[in-house]
Amino acid sequence: MSKKIYSLEESGAFVETFVLEAYQSGVLDGLKFAVKDNIDLAGKKTAYGSKPWAADHFAAVYNALCIDQILGAGATCIGKTVADEFTYSLDGENYFFGTPLNPKAPDRIPGGSSSGSASAIACGLVDFSIGTDSGGSIRVPASLCGVWGMRPTLHRVSEAGVLPFMPSVSTVGAFSNDIETLDKVMRVLLHSQNQESVKVKNIFLLEDAFSIASPLVQKAVKESISHLENFDGVNISWIGFGDIIGEKFDLTACNEKALRNLQTAEFTNTVGGWIESAKPELGPNFNAAYQNVRNFDRAGLNEALYLCESLFQKILAFTNAGDLFCFPTTPTVAPKKGSLSSLDRVMDFYGRTMAISSFAGIGRLPEISIPAAHIDGIPVGVSLAAGNYQDEFLLDAAKYFFDGDAVRKQGK
Amino acid sequence: MSKKIYSLEESGAFVETFVLEAYQSGVLDGLKFAVKDNIDLAGKKTAYGSKPWAADHFAAVYNALCIDQILGAGATCIGKTVADEFTYSLDGENYFFGTPLNPKAPDRIPGGSSSGSASAIACGLVDFSIGTDSGGSIRVPASLCGVWGMRPTLHRVSEAGVLPFMPSVSTVGAFSNDIETLDKVMRVLLHSQNQESVKVKNIFLLEDAFSIASPLVQKAVKESISHLENFDGVNISWIGFGDIIGEKFDLTACNEKALRNLQTAEFTNTVGGWIESAKPELGPNFNAAYQNVRNFDRAGLNEALYLCESLFQKILAFTNAGDLFCFPTTPTVAPKKGSLSSLDRVMDFYGRTMAISSFAGIGRLPEISIPAAHIDGIPVGVSLAAGNYQDEFLLDAAKYFFDGDAVRKQGK
Repeated sequence: MSKKIYSLEESGAFVETFVLEAYQSGVLDGLKFAVKDNIDLAGKKTAYGSKPWAADHFAAVYNALCIDQILGAGATCIGKTVADEFTYSLDGENYFFGTPLNPKAPDRIPGGSSSGSASAIACGLVDFSIGTDSGGSIRVPASLCGVWGMRPTLHRVSEAGVLPFMPSVSTVGAFSNDIETLDKVMRVLLHSQNQESVKVKNIFLLEDAFSIASPLVQKAVKESISHLENFDGVNISWIGFGDIIGEKFDLTACNEKALRNLQTAEFTNTVGGWIESAKPELGPNFNAAYQNVRNFDRAGLNEALYLCESLFQKILAFTNAGDLFCFPTTPTVAPKKGSLSSLDRVMDFYGRTMAISSFAGIGRLPEISIPAAHIDGIPVGVSLAAGNYQDEFLLDAAKYFFDGDAVRKQGK
Repeated sequence: MSKKIYSLEESGAFVETFVLEAYQSGVLDGLKFAVKDNIDLAGKKTAYGSKPWAADHFAAVYNALCIDQILGAGATCIGKTVADEFTYSLDGENYFFGTPLNPKAPDRIPGGSSSGSASAIACGLVDFSIGTDSGGSIRVPASLCGVWGMRPTLHRVSEAGVLPFMPSVSTVGAFSNDIETLDKVMRVLLHSQNQESVKVKNIFLLEDAFSIASPLVQKAVKESISHLENFDGVNISWIGFGDIIGEKFDLTACNEKALRNLQTAEFTNTVGGWIESAKPELGPNFNAAYQNVRNFDRAGLNEALYLCESLFQKILAFTNAGDLFCFPTTPTVAPKKGSLSSLDRVMDFYGRTMAISSFAGIGRLPEISIPAAHIDGIPVGVSLAAGNYQDEFLLDAAKYFFDGDAVRKQGK
């Protein structure tokens, strides 16, 4: 496979480039990485995808804790990548900083909000990149750009020095072009000891997510996982979200009645207050989305929070060591640039995408999007998720089922 | 028991008083509460214990999520309580906002950093109050002021709208004068469903914490728990921290080699950067403490983080449903005001107190400080801690072992 290498300028993935040397030798020696622009790098402004935000805040004095972990393990940082405005978007078109290139589908959006971090990997400019994911902001651009992306278990990676966004939902994770690099980086971030290897027992194909996906995505993802049947001792079966939680309730309801309310409420606290007070210039797409945030009724909060907790508990009770969930990361391949212009199309893209991403969100589960499926050469991700805190098991499983050969065989 | 009621002015517990009405009827109907000044209340400045911080930041536009939970459950907020400067202290003497009264020992410090929230309860001014605890900031003032205080499992209560402090360590919890009120409030914050009741099987008396405590505190706490032997079916035994984690390692090392490094590093990210950039006036005590923060060497971070993770995993593996840990909340009763003036005495008070509080900190455990022990009428807390996520069990157990009668019988 030959692969075009893009220039930094062509990629549009970076806000700024520079060199921050590793300050210690370690398992990431020799690797270059880039960092999403909502994560502090000492001496740099963290713009949070908004030029007015950058203008109103001091430059960071310290690296975010997660960045010092990486620099302390041998990798070198080469720059800051574009994020969606306030990281509150899944499309990757930033009014202030532009749209990073989706090199496998240049006329399509890269997905967001970790758009530049995914693009930098897809363009071959770094070995790995760091992003954040609250409602899909790593998984979605990984799926749409055709790269590996992992969102870990909620709260396993420190958020210190990451701009506060949704404290009960947000995670720090990574992108790469291969599972071996992703595995190394994530184990540093997870400050993981060597753990016993757990054998995969069950792969549950998540019916709700397949149903939400377009027929072409369903077909492509099914083909990309057909080789899983050849692995001995692994039981593959279909399961509905309602079967997991033991009541009639689907992922769309999970998103709309539970998770999205928590996300919206927390965003008003961390960013909404500043917007109301500073009255900054807002990009038109963000501004449209923000009106829903403003109109959010906090009187229903307790009900939504009880639901979030109860769904989390039920998923936790259902899931055993050795269990994996498998499903399409996104319901479609990347939409064409500018195609999310009508409210209907925006609502459809976000509603379906966030219904799927709400599974790991509500379950506080680790999820890896694997670049194993394509439709006419355009990538779409296959997700594996594991139980809460089973991040190392998930990395092992992804390596076992989708090593370089398997991905090359299935995905091309 | 007759109890003097103090005026708001006498207590010195409040930064500001006002009335924020409940916006829904619920389980907290009729109760009045106060809120630590690092938690947003709409329309008010959150000072974070620092007048320069207040001057440099907008007033909050939204209530913190946890406050809307409480207001949505029927309680009425009557004011904001004094916090230590940047909540980075355990003594409760704030250069800008004064020292809230410790009414049971008026010549002694109230403890911090949730000093005003503890004082407001001890002075009988509210039914409950909300505080935060990262290294002991609820447990310590609860112990020193002789009130109930609970720090829940890490991350079970939303931090949205709470000023970012130590994202991998900080919790939101509550104070009260009785377990019934504490129970009601905490179950709202925990957005807890009715859970099965778990029977207490083991009470482990934590040797390290008793050894760190002064002989008089050891004696008073042992007396206050002597009635536990009368409960049938409960196995009481001594255990060392090293027995729990399966290696020669004590709580002092846990604090110094693991937790304190994580705390310091995260504080540089959330507050240190602003201090370096804004160069605000600092109180002399905070300023002295802050020099250690500035000198913190981040090169040892990965090692400290691996240790934190490994200790957490070992405590998790050790602890079963039905297990409780019991120990003195603090190593001493409240020091006299002004007595923490020499570096030696500060180091001794902080070193010993944070070694004890590091147990729940590193284990991410829920802990309740119970006002059950006294030395010559001066209170000291008895702590019960339970396994990670066993908050409801802990509340049930505290109610079972230390109901009003038991506390009155044992503690007076």
